Amino acid sequence: MIAARSRNALYFQSGGVTAVINATAGGVIDAARSLAKAGAPIGTVLAARNGFSGVLKEELIDTASLSDEAVLRLRQLPGGAFGASRRLLPPYDERPDQWDRVAAVLRAHDIGHVLVNGGNGSMETARLFVELGRRYGLDITAVGLPKTVDNDLLDTDVSPGFGSAAKYLATSMREASLDLAAMSGGARATKVFILEVMGRHAGWMALSTALAQDAPGAAPHLILLPEVPFDEARVAAAVEATIARGGYCAITVAEGLSGPDGKPLAVERDSTTYGHEQLGGVGPWLADRLQARLGVKCHCAVADYLQRSARHLASRVDLEQAWAVGAAGLEWSLSGTTGVMVAIRRLADAPYRWDLVPAALEGLADRERKVPADFLTADGLHASPAGRRYLAPLIAGEAYPPFSHDGLPDYRWDCPPVRAPRLPPFAL
Amino acid sequence: MIAARSRNALYFQSGGVTAVINATAGGVIDAARSLAKAGAPIGTVLAARNGFSGVLKEELIDTASLSDEAVLRLRQLPGGAFGASRRLLPPYDERPDQWDRVAAVLRAHDIGHVLVNGGNGSMETARLFVELGRRYGLDITAVGLPKTVDNDLLDTDVSPGFGSAAKYLATSMREASLDLAAMSGGARATKVFILEVMGRHAGWMALSTALAQDAPGAAPHLILLPEVPFDEARVAAAVEATIARGGYCAITVAEGLSGPDGKPLAVERDSTTYGHEQLGGVGPWLADRLQARLGVKCHCAVADYLQRSARHLASRVDLEQAWAVGAAGLEWSLSGTTGVMVAIRRLADAPYRWDLVPAALEGLADRERKVPADFLTADGLHASPAGRRYLAPLIAGEAYPPFSHDGLPDYRWDCPPVRAPRLPPFAL
Repeated sequence: MIAARSRNALYFQSGGVTAVINATAGGVIDAARSLAKAGAPIGTVLAARNGFSGVLKEELIDTASLSDEAVLRLRQLPGGAFGASRRLLPPYDERPDQWDRVAAVLRAHDIGHVLVNGGNGSMETARLFVELGRRYGLDITAVGLPKTVDNDLLDTDVSPGFGSAAKYLATSMREASLDLAAMSGGARATKVFILEVMGRHAGWMALSTALAQDAPGAAPHLILLPEVPFDEARVAAAVEATIARGGYCAITVAEGLSGPDGKPLAVERDSTTYGHEQLGGVGPWLADRLQARLGVKCHCAVADYLQRSARHLASRVDLEQAWAVGAAGLEWSLSGTTGVMVAIRRLADAPYRWDLVPAALEGLADRERKVPADFLTADGLHASPAGRRYLAPLIAGEAYPPFSHDGLPDYRWDCPPVRAPRLPPFAL
Repeated sequence: MIAARSRNALYFQSGGVTAVINATAGGVIDAARSLAKAGAPIGTVLAARNGFSGVLKEELIDTASLSDEAVLRLRQLPGGAFGASRRLLPPYDERPDQWDRVAAVLRAHDIGHVLVNGGNGSMETARLFVELGRRYGLDITAVGLPKTVDNDLLDTDVSPGFGSAAKYLATSMREASLDLAAMSGGARATKVFILEVMGRHAGWMALSTALAQDAPGAAPHLILLPEVPFDEARVAAAVEATIARGGYCAITVAEGLSGPDGKPLAVERDSTTYGHEQLGGVGPWLADRLQARLGVKCHCAVADYLQRSARHLASRVDLEQAWAVGAAGLEWSLSGTTGVMVAIRRLADAPYRWDLVPAALEGLADRERKVPADFLTADGLHASPAGRRYLAPLIAGEAYPPFSHDGLPDYRWDCPPVRAPRLPPFAL
């Protein structure tokens, strides 16, 4: 038997980063090393610098120079260790030049496996790599590794990154509402706390704060999701009733909260020229509305990047899943699997059991998983028992990063340099 | 020798709460129990419900019903366990009726010691208690226990609460800037991250994020304090230069950032009717200005209550100091000390050594400790080595709260009911 020729794997991080996306990178690299040691035909893992941009620019980081310890440290590092970007591979007809370039890069670096770590749009890019391989006669496999704090990827129980954001947000809501509770006595005191969280079209992160509620009537009292059209009079009445009942009201609002016309209520900075509109500002907007309408003093926090980078409060379940999808992606690629995303399948709620199964990449980009109606209470303003049952296991367990003697998490990590290019430059 | 008659202690939490203010309560109660066991003439600790309001309303919580374990759990509980308020004791001439009432409450509950846990304004209330004792012929001691995330109390090295807020903010800045770094590649990517923190007149919390900077050129790149008048052209130039140098720019801005005229740049919701103006919104405001001026995409987080309630990331040094000032306050009171605040004195920077000394309550309310010029770099946009030397020890050590199996910090704590009143009601 002639041993198969060892070929390299390409890995890149695509779209917004998370507190645990680097654990997926670690899973990929660690699996490649273990398999190579066992004699499998796998070379080095090349990580593209700044996501797909680095593929086009042939900026590839050879992870072979990383010590095993440095690979393990990827587990505890928030942000994107190799950089990320929102750039995706366009369809062939739009940019044949980019397809030519990608094929050349894959050939020049003897890449046999492509692992795309991202969300909906990135899964389409992974799918196009399969097409690219076919079109250019390249013998490659392409596998998607799910990642998104938004949790809007279909066909997987959860997307790595979400559980840690959820744990951070639920903890923050619980803590801030204890502050609010202490300060809300007296007519002139702050009565409303609003936590604005990410979620353009899907309210998973907002919904996750429901887990902070440890008793009936505890915070959060209202959760406002993009899936439920905002009805100001109804929400104001609910806020007023909550204050009358318990003295204060804690609200979670998703950045993408929309009116009955389906349009987001607040667009902080219109940057349609950047492709995405940058949402934000719905928290302060809501505070103003409630203050004007009810005459109550409101406080508002905007979590922004904090919610997707808070590695100091990562969910252990999320961290394990992030690592596992990376390792499985590399293993499956090596065994010839292609055109799939590594999906997490739930086997049981409590105790939570899960395994990994392939899900077709086809069509993932076109469909967004929104919060289903049965995960919400009848009024659409809180999580139902089914919703809580879904969410609960995803934030279980702690996984603190090491703290230095200076009292801060130690996130030092030296990214290796990019490989010397083998092709002429390519203008983006 | 005739044993002195045991008298009760009154404790209340005043002003905004912190992640560790309840540790001070725990220190008070624990010291009272230990001393009582050793035969000292101390009765029970009565905690006023909702701060000074509870004194006027005769809403006093007898902490005798708390188990020793429940007292220890105060160490790990954010918010204000007994409630807090911003209400203070006015001068006698303004409200003689309130002075009469307070004297009646002290007499009715045989209170011999008053412990006021708060910031500048609360220290003045503590001082007025001394005057009240004199005026009404009551044999009481009154001691102030420092507390403020703002760290603007004079005559103490630091105020409990600040160190934990600082640790949370520096960690958050470090984490969010790793996110920013990963996402900032490409012309259209986000280049600026702004973290808005509390600090109306003093920039200590903003300054504390300097500790996130673990190498020259690392985030945060700019720190904008109330003490340094905002010069938009100069800041915009610094942002541009930072982006040109390293690709992105992370900025901390204090809510009270002011223009050359000394007026805050952003007043989110004008609520002067509530006494304080509620500041906020300077982060989004700055993002808009930079976006308009430099054409760069900006993200902005507003920490709000999260920064003063994040017990999950408390500083161990801060927690120990919070407990210690409570215990010392009770001990000193019992030995007859009155009219002082329990101040923390720094004996050495590294390793940090400190002890507790009395500081006169007189005049504390009128003076605010601002960030001194020598704690800033020459351009006023970052911490100097002296500033870092001051800040560094205050965030040292972790002190995680227990997490339940549900993945969230366990902050359950049952507040005992208020004592049956002994006086007729008093209308506030």
